[in-house]
Amino acid sequence: MNWLDQVKWDEQGLVPVIAQERGSKDVLMFAFMNREALAKTAELGEAVYWSRSRGRLWHKGEESGHIQKVHELRIDCDADVVLLTVEQLGHEPGIACHTGRHSCFFSVLRNGQWQAVDPVLKDPERIYK
Amino acid sequence: MNWLDQVKWDEQGLVPVIAQERGSKDVLMFAFMNREALAKTAELGEAVYWSRSRGRLWHKGEESGHIQKVHELRIDCDADVVLLTVEQLGHEPGIACHTGRHSCFFSVLRNGQWQAVDPVLKDPERIYK
Repeated sequence: MNWLDQVKWDEQGLVPVIAQERGSKDVLMFAFMNREALAKTAELGEAVYWSRSRGRLWHKGEESGHIQKVHELRIDCDADVVLLTVEQLGHEPGIACHTGRHSCFFSVLRNGQWQAVDPVLKDPERIYK
Repeated sequence: MNWLDQVKWDEQGLVPVIAQERGSKDVLMFAFMNREALAKTAELGEAVYWSRSRGRLWHKGEESGHIQKVHELRIDCDADVVLLTVEQLGHEPGIACHTGRHSCFFSVLRNGQWQAVDPVLKDPERIYK
């Protein structure tokens, strides 16, 4: 059985994907892949997601240069979530978030409020020229 | 504005949640919360998910004893994914997966196949008596 057939795709043919940084083990972002995106990710060794907002494949870093080199693909016990181990390229330290931050998970719940606690490493206007 | 109102709940009133182990930084599992589950998680300091299969709140560890003590709650840039930093209680090393493994992400893609590479730490029949 093909490994792509073993993934439990949702009603929209998507699977949720968590990208975790190699080394730091920081969780960088969360996105979706369809079958083609997952196949391309494995083939290229770079993260290719399915952009729900744009309705097309999204080769992460295609505009920003912030490519994710994939070192490992894992799947969970129910075969319905994928975990990528990635090297976040294009900037040091790596920038995964469109806000110019290292990780998309930069806001912490403190005193009943979500507070942005991680710095912007590069102005988004300079990332997306 | 209440922090719960800032979460972008999906059409079913749910938000995806990633649980990451404090210390090891291993990604342990992925699940969903509704508003009540997220409120209870923050209030109790223990992970309470929404079980889609059972259609009810699921206080993680209620049967297995494998409680997740929550140290931090984060939200992503789009406010539609939650990341928990947890201490996985009830067994040493921690068991988050119903298969008796440390993490639900125990299968790796190798040579075109998903291969279970992490050990079962406790027989599930002994976990769910």
